Formats: sequence, structure tokens, C-alpha cells
Amino acid sequence: MRQLSCWLAVLCCLATVEGRAQETTLASMTGKTVLVFSPHPDDELLGAGGTIALLNQHHNRVLVVLYTNDDKGSYDREMSSQRLARIRKAEEEAAEAVLGTPKENISWMGYDDGMLEYAPQPKLVEETTAIIRRVRPDVLLCPDPGEWYVRWHKTDHRMAANNTVDAVRAAEFWLYFPNQLLEQRLEPYQVPLMYFYYTTPQEANTWVNIDALMPVKLASAAKHVSQFEPAISKYRPDWDPDDLAKFEVEMKQSQPKKDGHYVELFRRATGFNQE
Amino acid sequence: MRQLSCWLAVLCCLATVEGRAQETTLASMTGKTVLVFSPHPDDELLGAGGTIALLNQHHNRVLVVLYTNDDKGSYDREMSSQRLARIRKAEEEAAEAVLGTPKENISWMGYDDGMLEYAPQPKLVEETTAIIRRVRPDVLLCPDPGEWYVRWHKTDHRMAANNTVDAVRAAEFWLYFPNQLLEQRLEPYQVPLMYFYYTTPQEANTWVNIDALMPVKLASAAKHVSQFEPAISKYRPDWDPDDLAKFEVEMKQSQPKKDGHYVELFRRATGFNQE
Amino acid sequence: MRQLSCWLAVLCCLATVEGRAQETTLASMTGKTVLVFSPHPDDELLGAGGTIALLNQHHNRVLVVLYTNDDKGSYDREMSSQRLARIRKAEEEAAEAVLGTPKENISWMGYDDGMLEYAPQPKLVEETTAIIRRVRPDVLLCPDPGEWYVRWHKTDHRMAANNTVDAVRAAEFWLYFPNQLLEQRLEPYQVPLMYFYYTTPQEANTWVNIDALMPVKLASAAKHVSQFEPAISKYRPDWDPDDLAKFEVEMKQSQPKKDGHYVELFRRATGFNQE
Amino acid sequence: MRQLSCWLAVLCCLATVEGRAQETTLASMTGKTVLVFSPHPDDELLGAGGTIALLNQHHNRVLVVLYTNDDKGSYDREMSSQRLARIRKAEEEAAEAVLGTPKENISWMGYDDGMLEYAPQPKLVEETTAIIRRVRPDVLLCPDPGEWYVRWHKTDHRMAANNTVDAVRAAEFWLYFPNQLLEQRLEPYQVPLMYFYYTTPQEANTWVNIDALMPVKLASAAKHVSQFEPAISKYRPDWDPDDLAKFEVEMKQSQPKKDGHYVELFRRATGFNQE
Amino acid sequence: MRQLSCWLAVLCCLATVEGRAQETTLASMTGKTVLVFSPHPDDELLGAGGTIALLNQHHNRVLVVLYTNDDKGSYDREMSSQRLARIRKAEEEAAEAVLGTPKENISWMGYDDGMLEYAPQPKLVEETTAIIRRVRPDVLLCPDPGEWYVRWHKTDHRMAANNTVDAVRAAEFWLYFPNQLLEQRLEPYQVPLMYFYYTTPQEANTWVNIDALMPVKLASAAKHVSQFEPAISKYRPDWDPDDLAKFEVEMKQSQPKKDGHYVELFRRATGFNQE
Amino acid sequence: MRQLSCWLAVLCCLATVEGRAQETTLASMTGKTVLVFSPHPDDELLGAGGTIALLNQHHNRVLVVLYTNDDKGSYDREMSSQRLARIRKAEEEAAEAVLGTPKENISWMGYDDGMLEYAPQPKLVEETTAIIRRVRPDVLLCPDPGEWYVRWHKTDHRMAANNTVDAVRAAEFWLYFPNQLLEQRLEPYQVPLMYFYYTTPQEANTWVNIDALMPVKLASAAKHVSQFEPAISKYRPDWDPDDLAKFEVEMKQSQPKKDGHYVELFRRATGFNQE
Repeated sequence: MRQLSCWLAVLCCLATVEGRAQETTLASMTGKTVLVFSPHPDDELLGAGGTIALLNQHHNRVLVVLYTNDDKGSYDREMSSQRLARIRKAEEEAAEAVLGTPKENISWMGYDDGMLEYAPQPKLVEETTAIIRRVRPDVLLCPDPGEWYVRWHKTDHRMAANNTVDAVRAAEFWLYFPNQLLEQRLEPYQVPLMYFYYTTPQEANTWVNIDALMPVKLASAAKHVSQFEPAISKYRPDWDPDDLAKFEVEMKQSQPKKDGHYVELFRRATGFNQE
Repeated sequence: MRQLSCWLAVLCCLATVEGRAQETTLASMTGKTVLVFSPHPDDELLGAGGTIALLNQHHNRVLVVLYTNDDKGSYDREMSSQRLARIRKAEEEAAEAVLGTPKENISWMGYDDGMLEYAPQPKLVEETTAIIRRVRPDVLLCPDPGEWYVRWHKTDHRMAANNTVDAVRAAEFWLYFPNQLLEQRLEPYQVPLMYFYYTTPQEANTWVNIDALMPVKLASAAKHVSQFEPAISKYRPDWDPDDLAKFEVEMKQSQPKKDGHYVELFRRATGFNQE
Repeated sequence: MRQLSCWLAVLCCLATVEGRAQETTLASMTGKTVLVFSPHPDDELLGAGGTIALLNQHHNRVLVVLYTNDDKGSYDREMSSQRLARIRKAEEEAAEAVLGTPKENISWMGYDDGMLEYAPQPKLVEETTAIIRRVRPDVLLCPDPGEWYVRWHKTDHRMAANNTVDAVRAAEFWLYFPNQLLEQRLEPYQVPLMYFYYTTPQEANTWVNIDALMPVKLASAAKHVSQFEPAISKYRPDWDPDDLAKFEVEMKQSQPKKDGHYVELFRRATGFNQE
Repeated sequence: MRQLSCWLAVLCCLATVEGRAQETTLASMTGKTVLVFSPHPDDELLGAGGTIALLNQHHNRVLVVLYTNDDKGSYDREMSSQRLARIRKAEEEAAEAVLGTPKENISWMGYDDGMLEYAPQPKLVEETTAIIRRVRPDVLLCPDPGEWYVRWHKTDHRMAANNTVDAVRAAEFWLYFPNQLLEQRLEPYQVPLMYFYYTTPQEANTWVNIDALMPVKLASAAKHVSQFEPAISKYRPDWDPDDLAKFEVEMKQSQPKKDGHYVELFRRATGFNQE
Repeated sequence: MRQLSCWLAVLCCLATVEGRAQETTLASMTGKTVLVFSPHPDDELLGAGGTIALLNQHHNRVLVVLYTNDDKGSYDREMSSQRLARIRKAEEEAAEAVLGTPKENISWMGYDDGMLEYAPQPKLVEETTAIIRRVRPDVLLCPDPGEWYVRWHKTDHRMAANNTVDAVRAAEFWLYFPNQLLEQRLEPYQVPLMYFYYTTPQEANTWVNIDALMPVKLASAAKHVSQFEPAISKYRPDWDPDDLAKFEVEMKQSQPKKDGHYVELFRRATGFNQE
Repeated sequence: MRQLSCWLAVLCCLATVEGRAQETTLASMTGKTVLVFSPHPDDELLGAGGTIALLNQHHNRVLVVLYTNDDKGSYDREMSSQRLARIRKAEEEAAEAVLGTPKENISWMGYDDGMLEYAPQPKLVEETTAIIRRVRPDVLLCPDPGEWYVRWHKTDHRMAANNTVDAVRAAEFWLYFPNQLLEQRLEPYQVPLMYFYYTTPQEANTWVNIDALMPVKLASAAKHVSQFEPAISKYRPDWDPDDLAKFEVEMKQSQPKKDGHYVELFRRATGFNQE
């Protein structure tokens, strides 16, 4: 009952947030297909890297889709967009390898860094819909399209979050982009379960304990050399040991905790209306 | 004092929400012209159907404008967009007839389901402005363009809410789309009163008691056969009696209550800045 | 550490709002370059006029950039957009002169009133980026792109707020619009400090006492004759004395107070992620 | 046989141009509905004004649709776009009245002068399609979308010509914009006959003798006061007698002649592929 | 010498058209990869079907790419766009099978009929570029983007012709869409040879004798049942024998001849500047 | 008489082309401001380089505006767009220096190579209009927007030609982009004379003898090292002597001749309708 559930969502939503049982399926699921959308190489790691490592350990098939190539975030005047894209791609593959995701599970939508909001929007949702219909994930992860992010979710983040949820809706009904069924044999698909990362403490309803995975998460983050100083200002392919030590301290400090444990926060939702 | 009132709105708004007297003019007004914008056929019913029935009973002239034709929400492989649009149009006319709105009071903007956000936006606001200037409503109803809906108000809902309020602003000043005055003799018009449906309990400031109207609302909702199972999965023009009974139970459960009464919630506002 | 700070912002933001020391640098700084973006002529005055007067008094260099020409907000049928734009420009110059900002410090992006959201967005952010890279401000002021404004921040306000922050981000990395460096010799620039006006009491973290500046602010506001009645309905270049008196009373009443003092509210932020 | 005829058109077209009998139905038809599209007020007069007068004399129903309001072509600094649009509209009504077209047969699409090419194109063709389906003309006149005009047909002319022919095609098949049938009861319609004005001597295949109509054409053209000097440089609502005399001489000189007669040139075509 | 050749093209082009030797490589080549772009299912047949049959007979690998799904060209009110797309796809596969092209060599870009011009253009050229870089054809066929077609090449034809040539240019330089190389391993590719079909007799420089292939071409065309009467007005999956006989007569009459032989006409070109 | 002249242009144009006296003002003018628009660095040289040298020798002020940065045309995998743009800018300055144009007379609109057609078009014409109103040229040079170029004038060339002529029209009437007058003090301006380069022999009506300037033109062209082999395939900042010799031979061969003299061809026009 599509529309009715929409309406219920409207009326009951805030109450529901409180009342929802804290299912921790993310931490225990096995044998599932998990599709992770990330605006840039490293967002999925920062928001959900420990959980991704856990999912891989538990024999789930994790697939990562990158919206953009992240080819602008450097202060280095010797850098170019073409070179930075190559660097970021290699870093992403190395970082995901640390989490247990094989290189062939990573795919790229090919948009330029910072320009996702200016991409032709119906095309963007059409492409994302095709990915969902092809992968047919048991679980989908993406940034939280929630209200709080309006301010923070500038450009790529805002667009990646909204667009993914819009595509989840479109994927369900074959009359959206019917040529995908006719010409590419992509059957419609209803995503059963979503976990939004980059959510707020106020809206989180799922916490994954990553105490045991912190070393893996740190090691994975350290592969994104070009995203941190000194390599932002002047690219070098490796860390200065001091910088790395400081980086790990800061990572640990900024990693959220709950009841004394390192956790990753998610908002769990079961429909495109985010019930 | 246009701009000053904007400024007041900024500074005083949240305080005001609390302090505003709960006027129930919606429940008692008579002889007014009421213009209702709805993203899809059925949204205005789910959000404000009891109130629309009441307004019709009280000899107001209710006009309903549908942004989209709702031609995609089916799982049925035998369905087509052209056929679904025909079905949805007939259902909408039947459902509004139950609420007392005559067929000739329903008009359609003709956008495709799920594609409102991708329509050319200045054109969309121009068309909506023309409707407001032509109808010159005493009261306007539309989905709440409020902050909470950012997450939920995907595509059509988000766009219908924002666009309607943008058109309310444009309608007031003749220098927006001045050809409407020159070529279509559409005078500028200031909407005196708005009620936003699909609002949150936290933001609602108006509650209409619909205890007496629940049977009408249920009967109206039941006309939207194709929007609910089993007709979403495999279209049939009528209900299975068991499904219908279950549907009515769920509708009642999901209808908000206040002090033991069935209510519809609105956020009342008196200017395009939503004071 | 660009990305890490993003992540910290996500996780720590709401807590931080509370904990941040209430630095009042705005009230005491001197010798700085302050760049103020305003959607329309008068928004920067209503939101931050006392503060701008103070900044000018303290020998800072204040530059004001207007996104739009404000050429639509009149009920007068004898008015035209070309004439209204001329009036608004002269009023803006007079109003800023009262605050101490010289005419040559005011510049105009030239968009039409109410149409900023329909401007080509990548071009808009590119132009704004060039302004920031050229001016290289110590402090930047613009409307708050915060969550609460989704509802209120219609069209021009919403777009001016978001677009300015997006340009702050782009200005920092030379690979955004690299032709600005090559062809216009515009070096990348990192804005060190932002204050958002039109913020909410709940989100404000900076309050500037403007008790002593209220007469200046009122005098400046009174220059915007065409923005208030009776000149909105029928343009006249001066006030009726009774209207002016009433206007000043209302301005005072609507000016926020804190601990018995007139204040202007800001949300202070130090990065494009609004830490 | 839709597609086959397309193909024939491709292969035989240039030969056909020569061989086609010079039917002069335009000059003799009666009791028909004739729909004339014009980019600006005066283009239909300059290209086909004598013919329009003849059609009105012969008891055909002539309807004129103006794409734009022509609100920019003045050197007068006291002019405004709103005022110029009013002037141009009054002039058009006066000029068409001289040709025998009643005011109520003139309608306006409302686009701004010089901006037709920047209008959202699918919307433009959709609106034009609705006009054709509503009017159901026996004959349609519009500027020639031919190859030679690529250079000359800048902006409004180029777009008006191409868009009209694209709408002729769309009008024929109900699956283009099917909501027009469903929601506005606009049946599909196949335009049987088109005459393109503003064609070249090389491509013309129809010549209408307007010897007897030259006084009417001149009188009609003289109503477009604001389009000619001195009123372009400094608007005045009437002619200087000397200027008018000179204007009439120039008009006569520039009116094409064939075998010693004043003629208007057309390219006749019978399908959207312009066979 | 890229730019110099452009310049030469400008200056020498018309002369060159005459002087170019009439190479008939199309008729004799073998073992090549031939990539055919077609706006709709049937355009490549009508323009080059005999030649395609010949190429298949000569053991070339022919790949056909359809820009649109051709889902609008029916007068039948029982038809729907979804159903018509299915019919057209089946007919295309059957028609190409007659020419010897296997079903797996046909691919679809998935645009809606008549809407290609309104697709986001940079995206369209990017997708087409990827196809060319993936297929790496020895020879490319598409409609002639020539001057004469401005008039006739409405919407899909005009866009398919221009867009294909634009993509040929982009395919050559890896800095166009560099993510195709990085993320999809698509190497840049220079198309060595193009033949434009739907050219004019005046511009043709290559004629393929299809005397022996006329029966195949007719049999293939007859598979496009829905494109011709009576199936346009009221769909039926087969021909009335009388209609078919008449259709074949017309097809033969309209097929161009040269020196008493049935031919297909092409404009041969060797660079994106169409030298 | 604006519109009348348009009409005359339509009817008399082709005849006029023949009849127009071959004024050679370009070759003899002195003390004029000449504004040259070029799609890429080198187009203005290839089409009009000898003439530009002559104009500089004759003490005219030549200003060159480049639409794009030409950052894609390389086969070199070590190249990047940022680096190529730098190279092309330096080459352009060196090449124009040979023609006598000082570096400060060269300006760049900053669009990416091959993407001009995808730039927001109303913005593009607005920017170009501002340039014309600022420079106020006695003579304007740009590629010919003529019919023949439809085929050849792909993307940047097609757009640069059409857009420049559209801006010439807009520049004349202050109601186009009236904020340019109000906010930037840019007075409207009527371009008195245009010469289109990259015209065809058939359409040329002006030929400039460049016999004496061929060495200068060759020397200037040789500065565009990266545009020719071997530097397209593998960048090097200088020529191989053999390549250079061959290049000069080819340049000479391809330079058009008239009556035994090297010439540059132009189509002279005196209004935006290209009379």
C-alpha cells in the first residue's frame, strides 16, 4: 500500500524514530549483497568503514559505487585533475582492499568532483536506478538525506544522498525508465533495507560496535594519502611518520563512541519514504 | 511593509509558532473559494480529505489542482503509463465526488509522475502563478514546504510544496510574469491565508476535527483502487472485500488523533514568508 | 586535513554549537576586509546593518555584493522593472552610505529579483568564486544556509545562502575553475571566518550589541523607501512622516534583544563545512 | 506510410521543388481556418500581410499566434520592457484590424523578445502542439525553417520556425504529450497544408499577387509605429508625415515582384517533413 | 595536423567534393567492424539497408546502435508507448536479421521518440563517445549532418547526425571525458572512415549498387509492420496482402537509381571535419 | 527602421551578395578599434592572421577575445587539461605578438574546449554583449555564421559564430540585459561593420591580399607548436626542422589564392541581419 504508507510516514515518523527497536542486523548479517553509494572516494570509509570491514568478514558481497572522481581537492599547483583522479582511484582501491572489498567490486559513475549537483538530474537518477536494478542489493548504504544535512550536505553530498533515495523509489516501479527493462533486461527491484551513514546522533537508530575494527579502519584511512596534509598542499605518495601518528590520534578522537565503545552510526529505513 | 515582515518572520518565527492562537476558521468558513494543490491524485485526500468534505458541506467552492498524472506507481507489467493516467484520473474524480467536489472543479497541470523536479522550474512557477491569479482563492491548501520535509519530500512532494509557495509570492507582484496581466488579463493577487497539510505534529497549529467525516474520507480513499494492493501488483478495478476491510482498519489506525478525536493537521500561514 | 574535518563536523556539530566560546570578534575587529553577500538590496541591512556600521567605524573595509537587482517587488502599475532597479540601486547606495560604506564598495551581480534559483547554477558559483578570490576577505557575511531556512529561504534567499557557501569551498581549491588562475590571475583563497546572518536564535552563537547603532540602522533602513508602504503600492521617493514614525516603532519592536540589549544574531563558522 | 514518405522526401526533395505545380490555393480558398504563427508582432505582416488580408476578405477564419511580446527593440532610454510590450500589443491589434483580423483572433504565447531560443524547448513544443490541436487549422503559416535561414534566422526566428514544424509533427500523434488528450480533451490533429513565409526566391513555390492589397498592407505596416524611426529612438505614438511618406516608398521598393506584380512568396509543404 | 586540416577543409571543401575519387570501398570491404547509428529503428534500413546486407554478406561485423525507441508514431488509441517500444524493438530485430545482422549486434541508447533534442546534450555526446571508443569501428555510418538537412532533420534526425559527428571528434582525444579511460579503460579512438546516409544527390560521393539486394531490402522493410498503414492507424502484427504489394511498389519507385541501377547514396568523409 | 531592414534582408539577400561593391576597407583602414572573436587560440590566425597583421601595421587597435581555452586537443597521455591550457595561452600570446597584437589586448572568456555549445546560452550571449558594449569596436571579426557551416561548424565554431552575431544584436538595444547599463555603466552599442572569416569562396565578398604578409602569417602559425605534429602526439615545445619545413609548405598550399595572389576571404556585413 504505497501511498498509505507514505501518509503513515508523515504522521508517525518522529514518534517512530524513538520507538524503533535497535536491530543490529548490520553487525551480524551474512551472505548478503550490500550496495554502498559514496559521493567521493573516502566518504564511505569515514562514515561506515568499520562496518564495511565487518560485512566483508561475514562473507557478504560488498559493492561500492563512487559518484565522483574527487579530482579537485588539492592545493598543489603541480597537480592536475587528470592526475588527481588517477591518484584517488588508486587510493580508493587500496583503502577498500584493507576493508576486504576486492577491486572488481568498486565502480565509478564518473562525475567530476564538486559538480554532481550540476549534472543533468533526470539522467543521474536514471543511471543510479539502473545500478540498483542490476545489483539488486539486500541492503543499501548511502549518506543520510535527512533534514539536518541541508546545511552541511553541500553539492556532492546533498545530491548523492537525495539522488540515491530517489533512485530507490524509481527502481521499484518498472514504468520509471521502462527502456531499462525492455532494452537492458533490468527488472524492477524493491530495496528492502537501507542504512544511512553520515547521520546525526539525534537521528541514529543503529550503532555498530567497531572496537575490534579500529585498526583496520585506521589502516584503510591511511591509504587516502592525498586527502590529508602534507599531501594536499604538495603531493607525495607516502606519509611522514609524524603526520601519520598525529592523523591516527585525531581519527580516534573524532570517531564517535557509545557506552565507551567506538561505534558507527546509521539511520535504518525500510522504504523510499524512509519509514 | 513587505520586507520588514520578512525580517520579523526570521527573527520571531519559532516563538510565534507557539504563541499563535489556534484559529479553526477552516472548520467553520463558508462561501469561500478554496484552492487545493496536490502533487498526485490522492495526496490532498490523505492530508486533508475530511476537511475538504467539510468545506464542501459548508458551501465553499473547492478547486483541486493536480501537479502530476501519477502514471508510474504500478507493479503490473500489463499496465502502461497512458492507461494508468486514465485510471488515476477517473479514480480522482470519483474520490473527490465523494468529498463533494464536482468534476469540473478538478484541473491537471499534466506533469508526469515522479518528474516534477525535472520540469523547467521557472515555467512551473509561472504556470502556478497564473492559476492563482485566475482563481484568486480566499484560502490555499498545499503540502507543507517545511524543514522537516526535506528528507521525506522527495521529488514531486518537495517540488509541489516549494513551487506553490514560490508562486504565491510571484502572484502578488505584477512584475513577475507581467505578460500574464497584459496578454491574459490576469491581475496580481495576494493570497490571504494558507493551510499546509502533510505538516508535522510539532509544527501544526490548526487541527480540524473529522470524527463525523471519517466514513466519507474512507469511502473517498477507497475510490483510489489502483493505489493499493492488490491492484498495484495486478490491476483490477474493484476491491477484494477482505482487502477493503483491512484497508479501512489501517486507514483508521493511521489517522492522527488529538484529545481522542480524529483530526487533520495543518500549519496555518498568512504570507509567502509563512508568518 | 580537509576530509577529516568534514567528518568531524558531521559527528560533533550539534554538540559543538553549544560548546563554542562566544567570541565577539565581529564587534571589535579592525583593519580587516569584510565581504558581505546579500540576496537583495536591504537584506544585509536588516540582518546585519548595525554590525556593518560598527565595522566601518572600526576602520574595516566593508564590501557589499548584491546578488539581485530587486526589480519586482512593487504593486504600482506605473512602475517598470527597469525603473524599479534604478530606484533600488540608488536606495541601496544611500542606505549603505548611512552605515559608512562608500558607494564604490558596492557591486552587483545583476540577477533579476526572484529568479536567482533559475540562473545557471554552475555559472553562479563560478562568478561568486571569482569575487571571493579577487576580494580575499578576512571575514565573509551571508545569509545562514542552515536547515531552518529551508522553509523560509525561498528562491533568492535559499540560493544566495547555499551558493555563497559552495563558492567558499570552490575558492579554496585552484582546480575549481582553473581558468580563473590562468586567465584572470585569481589565486585560490581560503576564507578564514564566516558569520551567517538571518540565523535563528537556536543556532546563533554570536551576538553583536547594537544599542548605540540603532539610530544609524533606522536611518539606513529609512532610505529603502520603495520597500515599504506607502511606496510599494504607489511609488513616491519620500516618506509620509506618520508612516515613517510607525515604521521606526515597528523596526525597534522587531529588532531582537538579548539581556535587554538590541543585538544582531550570527552563526559563526570557520570552514565551508561550517565547523 | 509515415516513414516511407520521410524517406521519399529525403531522396526526391530537391527535384520535387522544381516540379511541383504552382497551386495558388492561398489566393482563392474560402471558409477555411488559417493559423498563423509569428515570432514577433509584425513578422506575419511583413511576410504575409497581403495574403492575410486576402484570406480575411475571402471569409476564412484567420488566427494569429505571437511567440514573443517584442519588448526589447527600442533605443529610447525612457522606454521600459513593460511599456514597450503594451505598445507592441496595441500596434499589433491595430495592424491586424487593418488586415481584417479581429482582436479576439490574436493570441500571445508570452515569451520575451529575443529569448525564445532560451525557453525550455520541450515545453515550447508542447504548448505549440496544444495550440494546433485546439485550433485544428486547415492551413498553417509560419516562417520557413529552411536551410537558407540558418544564418539569418537568429534566435526568435530560427526557433519559431523550427519549433512550429516540430509541433506540427507532434500534434499528429497522440502519444506526444498524451495528457493533452486525457486532461484537456485535445485530439491529435494532422495539419494538411503549410505555407512558409520568409522563404527565399530560390525555394518559393507559391506566389500570391498582392497588387490590389498593397494599400492595405502599407496601412497595416504603418500601425507598427514603434518599430520604425523616429519612434525607435524616441517613442512617439504617431508618424512624422515625411517619415511616413519615405517609409511607404521603401516598403514598396522592398516588396518582391514577379512578372511586374507585387507578390508574397511562400514555400508550400504538405507534411512535417515538408514534402 | 589537426587544426590545419580543419582550415583546409574550410577553404577547399566544395571543390573537394567534386574532385574526390568515387571509392566504392563500402561495396567491397571485408573483415571490418562497421558501426551504424540510427535515430529510429528503420532509418538505417531505409538509408543503407542494401549496403548493410552487402556488408554482412562480405563477412564484416555490423553493429547497429539505435538512439531512440520510436515509441510515439502511432494513431492507434489502444496503443501505449511501452507497448509500441516493445513492438518496434521486435520489428527492428526481425528486419536486421533479414539483412544478416544478429540480434546481439543491436544495441539501444534508450531515448524516447522525438525527444532526442531535449536530452542533456553533453551527456548524449559522452555516451556516444563511449560507444565509439568501445567498438572502435573501421567504418562508421550515420545520417548526414549536412547543411541541406537543417530543414528536414528535425529533432531526432538532426540531433543524431550532429551528435554522432561530435562524438567522433571527442572519441579521438582522451582529454574529452578522461574518466572513460581511467574508470572504464576506454582508449581514445580515431574513426578512420565515415559514410553518411540520408545524404542528397548533390552531396553524395559514393553510390552502392543494390540491384541484387532489393529483394532483401524489401523483405527487411516489410518487417517494420507498425511503421506503415494499416498498422499505424490500428495496430496489427501482419500485413494485408494488398497493402504489402502496394508498399513494395512504392518502395521500388522511391529507391534512387543511377545509370539504371538501384543505388544507395552516401557522402564519404575521413575526419570529424568531414574532409 | 529595424524590422523593415530585416525584411529587406530576407527578400533581397542573395541578389545583394553578388551586387555588393567589393570594398576593401579592411586592407586600408587606420586608427580603428577592431574586435576579433575566435573559438580557439589559432582560429583567428588561420582565418584572418594576415589581415590582423595588416591592421596592426596600419595603427588600428586590434583586440582578440578567445571563447575557449583549447585544453583537450592532444594525444599525449602525459598531458593534462590544466597544462595544455597554459601551453595554448602562451602560444596564442606568442603568435599574436608576431602579428603585432600586444599581450594585454588578448582576453579569454574561459570556456573549456569543445564545450561551448553546452554552456548556458543566455549567459554566453550576455557575457559577449558586455564585451561588445565595453570595447565598442568600429569593426568586428568572427567566424561566418552562414548556412554552409552548419555541417562543419561543430560545437565551438558553430556556437561562437552564432553567439557573436546574437550578441551584436543584443548590444544594440539597452533593454537586453539592462543591468549592464545600470550596474556596469555599459552603454548600448551598434556594431557598424562586421567581417566574417572562415567563409566560403561562394559567399565571400571581400578579399584581402596577404602576399606581403605570408612570412608573418607563417611565423605566427609556427608559434602554435602544440596544435601540430609531432607535438600533438607527444608534446615538445619546439619543432623538428623537417616538420616545420613541411608545415610551411602545406600552409602555403592551403592558403587560398585569387588572381595569383594569396588572399584571406571575408563576408562583409553591416547589421545583425547580415545585410
